[in-house]
Amino acid sequence: MQINKFLCLLGFLLSVAVQAQIEKVEPPFWWSGMQQEDLQIMFYGENIAEYEVAAGDDVIVKNVIKTENPNYIFLTLNTGTLPAGSYNIDFKRKGKKSFSKKYELRERRANSAMRKGFDASDVIYLIMPDRFANGDPSNDSHPSVTEVADRKKQGGRHGGDIRGVINNLDYLEDLGVTAIWSTPMLEDNDPAYSYHTYAQSDVYRIDPRYGSNEEYRELAAEMHKRDMKLIMDYVTNHWGAEHWMIKDLPTYDWINQFPGYENSNYRMTTQYDPNVAEIDLKYCVDGWFVRTMPDLNQRNPLVLNYLIQNAIWWIEYADLDGFRVDTYSYNDKEGIAKWTKAIMDEYPNFNIVGEVWMHDQAQISYWQKDSPIGAIQSYNSYLPSVMDFTLHDAILEMFQEEEASWDKGMIKAYENFVNDFLYADIDNLLVFAGNHDTNRINEQFDGDLDSYKLATTLVLTTRGIPQLYYGDEIGMRGDKGKGDGDIRRDFPGGWEGDENNAFNAEGRTKMQEDYHSFTKTLLNYRKQKEVLHFGKLLQYLPEENVYVYFRYNENERVMVVINNSPNERSLDPGRYAEGIKGFPGGTDILTGRTHKLSEPIKIAGKTPMVIELK
Amino acid sequence: MQINKFLCLLGFLLSVAVQAQIEKVEPPFWWSGMQQEDLQIMFYGENIAEYEVAAGDDVIVKNVIKTENPNYIFLTLNTGTLPAGSYNIDFKRKGKKSFSKKYELRERRANSAMRKGFDASDVIYLIMPDRFANGDPSNDSHPSVTEVADRKKQGGRHGGDIRGVINNLDYLEDLGVTAIWSTPMLEDNDPAYSYHTYAQSDVYRIDPRYGSNEEYRELAAEMHKRDMKLIMDYVTNHWGAEHWMIKDLPTYDWINQFPGYENSNYRMTTQYDPNVAEIDLKYCVDGWFVRTMPDLNQRNPLVLNYLIQNAIWWIEYADLDGFRVDTYSYNDKEGIAKWTKAIMDEYPNFNIVGEVWMHDQAQISYWQKDSPIGAIQSYNSYLPSVMDFTLHDAILEMFQEEEASWDKGMIKAYENFVNDFLYADIDNLLVFAGNHDTNRINEQFDGDLDSYKLATTLVLTTRGIPQLYYGDEIGMRGDKGKGDGDIRRDFPGGWEGDENNAFNAEGRTKMQEDYHSFTKTLLNYRKQKEVLHFGKLLQYLPEENVYVYFRYNENERVMVVINNSPNERSLDPGRYAEGIKGFPGGTDILTGRTHKLSEPIKIAGKTPMVIELK
Repeated sequence: MQINKFLCLLGFLLSVAVQAQIEKVEPPFWWSGMQQEDLQIMFYGENIAEYEVAAGDDVIVKNVIKTENPNYIFLTLNTGTLPAGSYNIDFKRKGKKSFSKKYELRERRANSAMRKGFDASDVIYLIMPDRFANGDPSNDSHPSVTEVADRKKQGGRHGGDIRGVINNLDYLEDLGVTAIWSTPMLEDNDPAYSYHTYAQSDVYRIDPRYGSNEEYRELAAEMHKRDMKLIMDYVTNHWGAEHWMIKDLPTYDWINQFPGYENSNYRMTTQYDPNVAEIDLKYCVDGWFVRTMPDLNQRNPLVLNYLIQNAIWWIEYADLDGFRVDTYSYNDKEGIAKWTKAIMDEYPNFNIVGEVWMHDQAQISYWQKDSPIGAIQSYNSYLPSVMDFTLHDAILEMFQEEEASWDKGMIKAYENFVNDFLYADIDNLLVFAGNHDTNRINEQFDGDLDSYKLATTLVLTTRGIPQLYYGDEIGMRGDKGKGDGDIRRDFPGGWEGDENNAFNAEGRTKMQEDYHSFTKTLLNYRKQKEVLHFGKLLQYLPEENVYVYFRYNENERVMVVINNSPNERSLDPGRYAEGIKGFPGGTDILTGRTHKLSEPIKIAGKTPMVIELK
Repeated sequence: MQINKFLCLLGFLLSVAVQAQIEKVEPPFWWSGMQQEDLQIMFYGENIAEYEVAAGDDVIVKNVIKTENPNYIFLTLNTGTLPAGSYNIDFKRKGKKSFSKKYELRERRANSAMRKGFDASDVIYLIMPDRFANGDPSNDSHPSVTEVADRKKQGGRHGGDIRGVINNLDYLEDLGVTAIWSTPMLEDNDPAYSYHTYAQSDVYRIDPRYGSNEEYRELAAEMHKRDMKLIMDYVTNHWGAEHWMIKDLPTYDWINQFPGYENSNYRMTTQYDPNVAEIDLKYCVDGWFVRTMPDLNQRNPLVLNYLIQNAIWWIEYADLDGFRVDTYSYNDKEGIAKWTKAIMDEYPNFNIVGEVWMHDQAQISYWQKDSPIGAIQSYNSYLPSVMDFTLHDAILEMFQEEEASWDKGMIKAYENFVNDFLYADIDNLLVFAGNHDTNRINEQFDGDLDSYKLATTLVLTTRGIPQLYYGDEIGMRGDKGKGDGDIRRDFPGGWEGDENNAFNAEGRTKMQEDYHSFTKTLLNYRKQKEVLHFGKLLQYLPEENVYVYFRYNENERVMVVINNSPNERSLDPGRYAEGIKGFPGGTDILTGRTHKLSEPIKIAGKTPMVIELK
């Protein structure tokens, strides 16, 4: 071997060693032509901060930030003038070999910026992917993550995955839902209870037990083929203790320190209490959700920017149609508003719904974009959509109150909608009877199909964006009191060998079919009925536990009757003249029966009617 | 008898006959120099509308309104340039003898316009005058009104009167209250249950069973000597069916007609429901409170003006310091706002508190002047003060919840104050544990003195204007479930021959004295403590059912501790550093004990502390 050949080889080997020093680059790539031109790239590697970093001539470096941890460099570029392509980032150090790293800017999809998020024309189906369908048993466990599948454990991993969702998109399309909100699918390497996946360990990677980043993108693409929308469950408030950055913090204040762990007091009302003690607010916002979920400090611009870019990356990469944001109101108030605004600035027609789990409508409204309530404190979250938790509270109670009184029975629905004026955008409220954190609605109703029909009719025909919880449409039960796992049981038929397969009409029991066919009828009606999406609401004071309301626009009117009493009732159409507006009759789309509106309308006990006026 | 003497006598007799035709002139007199210069005088008499009405040269007649009822004339004068004095109003009619009527404009009291209403420096004592003290047994029944006294009837008249209140002002002054809200005292000629006096039959006359207009004025004067304030309970929403004008309506639409009576649905939320059906709103606002209380139509300008002038007349005549307005939110929304604004325009420093009995803070806030909630619908009631009914709801529950949980115990107080930001003027909220329409607080607490102490401490030391209910300070019981009369029992000692006389220390039982002395101590402390009137509130999340808060201003700090648990607790002062703000110690004004704030503060179970920091 010649000496120069040897030196050459040595140089090559050294270069490889040095380059290997960069373990992570995040975001791993980006796109050309984004509205926000600044891009902050994080380089991670042992003592990487000993290098000076620079970029090629055509790239404007805005700044380079190094922190107290020498393993991180944050490089901000201006991408405003850069076409798609590959760009050199140069690392130089006195006395050491320089090296370069390619960074890619990709082409965006056509109309990516103007993508239209989910809205009230949609019905969202909430899935816990570990519990829905196991389309690929080969990934139930994976060498790169700790917890292995064990379907016998209530809180264990059961093997459900992206392939399982893709395989059952036809089921969902047939059912009549138009969007999926899946609980998180990013890597969660907790040693136990990782199936809920809210304690994430790598936010640029789909958990391999769900599949790959590519499969997640395939899911979105398959859904778009069916005119369906994919909503990602995003967590800004915390990461898992197993997150690689938590184990090697870029800065001490990347997370909220007391030092280290203190638990949140969960008192979200401290966020706007004018009489609040600072210490209580601090424990709410900076306290950790649980010990295994270090609380991210969105007041740190590096953290905030990381979260913004990560969120945008997923929208752009996977072609998303929306976010649901976990524990929205536990975040630093200003930080989460900046995060939300940054995303909405990038995608003005996108939609984001925040989990604002409160029991007071002014308090829920507070968190919605342009809220008149938030405005009292000059606060604007920029969050387009919030969750109608007070309606959920009411639904849990009212259908078990057959004897109406001043404040029992259907009046609870009525009184909920009275406060609609507190919201900035009433059509952008998520309306639901249950989710993965609440008692199963069919448990709450003790398996009473009639109550399910009443509740589902309300959810699917009132204002807002309906959200269903997987399995409710086949009567699935689950008791929150028995643990979260019980309300997150496996969907029957999602696993090979399941005796009961509710994904097929033939496989469903009579009970399941009764639930399913009702839900399907109503969903498919709603799907094509614009008046149920954006029509105005006109409601009447319930009488004898019968609640009547109308959705209407210039062309169409639908009259909904919810008889929550056990007795047949007869309605005098005269009382509802403002809603009926001269229409002579209508068809109950649930039964196909026509009704004259010149004579009393009879309705059986515990029965809904959805009458399209004609 | 000479013929000319005879003619003269005949003329005189005719004149008397004609003048007697005017049965009522309302307001009976007015004042010179009012801010609102227009005065609308109503003349009532058989066929009075057959006359043309005019005034002397120096009086500007703005207009004369005759209605479909010939027994009324409404004459509007401009009083702007008129000095106090007597003015001729001339009635002329073709073919009939003309006649004149003197109308008096009086001098106003000095500073009448700038009178200062009650505020957070006050504590209001609510009295039902029929049930407080019978100072004048000679007026227990009266020939001009129907119902006679019968103390044995729970819903009968018991004989309490103005003289009884005047006689016991020393008791109230010594107790430490600074204002009285008495339920209405205007004439109520209902044949039964007239003691509550909300079904009024003549709103220019004190019910003779309470005394005379002059005695009512004497009450105010006697109170002012003691630096106390008198608040009149005013009813804009309805009159009694026995009201003389209801029996001979000036216009068909003087009251809300369906035609005639339909009951209110009492659903006040229809007032701002954006989805409301018109018919429901109509039944709320126009429906009658009960059949015996015809609902006044404030959309009729004659009615509105009548009510405005009547209210102003009482302020000016009796020298009032405030109104409490009954069923405020049942009124026509625009009408009641005009009424309120007219009074506040006349008396810019006056105060009016409206009964807005709701269970949602946004909904209560809606009705307060300059409310950010009302503003959502461009509504401004101009009502300075509203009632903290949600705090009342909480007080009824939390002191019986010794085992605190996520949403039980003192957290209910904390969560109430969280929403203070929804109110336009938090110092102008009426804070109370009970009133004449709610269960007696000591009944609610089943006679538990400790609970009374905790509740009373909260009411008297939090922000807002405290209101006590007569007799609570001596432990009076009363069960709403047994009828309204039971919560409106006679104050012991108010009637000659009462065995127990709680007006005197010697007459009080041990139990009564225990309640009284606690109340008196706290009231007299509050009276001179500005920080408890207008100081800011700083509250801490309750821990183990102990609620700690501070009232503070630039100079003073008071730390309030309410231990609602049955167990002794020890508080770490470090947690409360923001409130303690370096003060080394303080004195519990309830016990006189001093506490160092450098060491744990021990507090016995079910005990309050009010520590003045020093």
